[in-house]
Amino acid sequence: MDSKDGDDHAAAQANRPATGQRATPQTTRLDLNRIRSAIPKIALVFRNTPQYACPALGEALDCEIILKLETANPVRCFKARGAETVMARLAEKPGSRSAVCASAGNLGLSLAWSGRSRGISVTVVAGASASPLKLDRIRALGATVRIVDGDIEDARQLARQLADTEGAFLVEDSENIDTCEGAGTIGIELIEDMGPVDAVVLALGGGAMATGVGHVFKCLAPEVEIVCVQPKGAPAMALSWRAKSVVETDRTDTIADGVAGRRPIPAVLSDLLAVADHVPLVEEESIIAGMRMLYRHAGLVVEPSAALGVAAMLEDRSRYRGKRVVTIICGGNVVPADFERWVIKPDGE
Amino acid sequence: MDSKDGDDHAAAQANRPATGQRATPQTTRLDLNRIRSAIPKIALVFRNTPQYACPALGEALDCEIILKLETANPVRCFKARGAETVMARLAEKPGSRSAVCASAGNLGLSLAWSGRSRGISVTVVAGASASPLKLDRIRALGATVRIVDGDIEDARQLARQLADTEGAFLVEDSENIDTCEGAGTIGIELIEDMGPVDAVVLALGGGAMATGVGHVFKCLAPEVEIVCVQPKGAPAMALSWRAKSVVETDRTDTIADGVAGRRPIPAVLSDLLAVADHVPLVEEESIIAGMRMLYRHAGLVVEPSAALGVAAMLEDRSRYRGKRVVTIICGGNVVPADFERWVIKPDGE
Repeated sequence: MDSKDGDDHAAAQANRPATGQRATPQTTRLDLNRIRSAIPKIALVFRNTPQYACPALGEALDCEIILKLETANPVRCFKARGAETVMARLAEKPGSRSAVCASAGNLGLSLAWSGRSRGISVTVVAGASASPLKLDRIRALGATVRIVDGDIEDARQLARQLADTEGAFLVEDSENIDTCEGAGTIGIELIEDMGPVDAVVLALGGGAMATGVGHVFKCLAPEVEIVCVQPKGAPAMALSWRAKSVVETDRTDTIADGVAGRRPIPAVLSDLLAVADHVPLVEEESIIAGMRMLYRHAGLVVEPSAALGVAAMLEDRSRYRGKRVVTIICGGNVVPADFERWVIKPDGE
Repeated sequence: MDSKDGDDHAAAQANRPATGQRATPQTTRLDLNRIRSAIPKIALVFRNTPQYACPALGEALDCEIILKLETANPVRCFKARGAETVMARLAEKPGSRSAVCASAGNLGLSLAWSGRSRGISVTVVAGASASPLKLDRIRALGATVRIVDGDIEDARQLARQLADTEGAFLVEDSENIDTCEGAGTIGIELIEDMGPVDAVVLALGGGAMATGVGHVFKCLAPEVEIVCVQPKGAPAMALSWRAKSVVETDRTDTIADGVAGRRPIPAVLSDLLAVADHVPLVEEESIIAGMRMLYRHAGLVVEPSAALGVAAMLEDRSRYRGKRVVTIICGGNVVPADFERWVIKPDGE
């Protein structure tokens, strides 16, 4: 962490335990024991995901890179860990047997899967630009899909209304602590079986994965640098982390639809301030270069959000040189035609 | 298994236990307890691989399809299970601290990985047509590469000579029982966690995976149909199974380099006769169609051998309709340019 720049350091230091000591970052809403207790609630098919060094990619990036692969499951993304945690806890409660969420795809898909396996009806509210392919797969899992004229923030508003009027349980990604704690189980698996690492570089959207995994590392391995990456085209949470207070943006402009929020949630920002060491913003072309490297060197088809870590490494090679770095491949839901247009150039370049 | 055709049935029936009963197929060289004991010898990174239903692919194939993914590890194929088993047992013996094998890539890569982790020097002998990319990666893992003027059978001859003259331990894929028993651990994982299935459809090359996985199912779930698939362009083992005696071929002509042998090993054929229920041969165009479906519907980049199962399902849809079918995605080592030429047509078709 020698290369940590001043601003980042100041923001992180305020909430960090003494270097090298195990400690609980008191300022987050998350709880390590609750994260551990989430593990058995998550269907086995989403747990113990592959985590392995990829020498070919490591050579290209001048470091040892460890991939944590969250795409080899029925919903092809990490969000099922959170959805499973939410729905398992919901199923234990008396009353509501329905749930609603706003989602551009992955949360909706995951919640639909979990709802079907537990007999809980699910409504997914999506913005107008959501991928029809993803929405079809959500419907195929038995969930109801509602489309709003607007983006994910407008969808969140309608989801809240539906929860109020219809009594459905509202699953707000990253605000609902179960979504963060479910994602945090990724961190437990990494710490238990991967040996020491220098940094974890992951995608930052609403903040569930960043705070979940970050909290686990700050509790169990606080010496590991937690790098949370956003696209320059959807920088609201990164700007908020830097300003230490919520910064909203008017619009997003990125291919990384999975992380494209505009209105950070204050409680999640507070958690992020406690666990993130460095929050870079990356260019769209770096995201595409990252997707291409993951395809060429690791044989992986990933969605743009899953390449944010590699994108950050490409833009700041010296920070990672010679280090042992984990990046979480958080989703593989990409339309083949998009993947080909972005990643496989016609001239074979 | 109603749709099993007469010839297949006769070949399999001779060595099958009474329907639905657990029994040991006495005629194979393999041993279930030895397969179980191989599990802890295999590095964790190659074990407990993802196994999950892929609804999108299942819809396209009119059945429930379960993917067993052997590509998300540092050598991107299943063969490390066998190589680890071989090398762990070799490391326990006094004497030889070197090993040699003939390989078109995946066994060599796997043996090199295992040798490096155990301090055993490895020589890999490859035919002239072996992929330079794979050979570079074998060298990067510290193994010595020898190229012969000829194909994999010529490479096998030189490997035997080197073992004789230099005292290296000869790892003959599928003849060496450890390679089969290591691969058999895939079957243990499937039976322990996947629930009942109707069929396992897998690639047949030298026979290590087919006999290993097949043996486990015949011991623990003999009602499951074991389907072993070869390309029409490399049919030696399939023809041998049908003839119940070794049939050699003069040449191979297939893109599925991982399964392209010409001289079946009698002991392995004997094992295969005891465990295989059906051994179809598939067209090259079906292999490519299978690769394309795995890419489009499951987001997977696989080598041709790994698509043999889907190819067989495409050529014989009625056999699998409505069934619960496992196919083993045995390798992902494919050169991107080849993958793009085969799978991603320029016209976007």
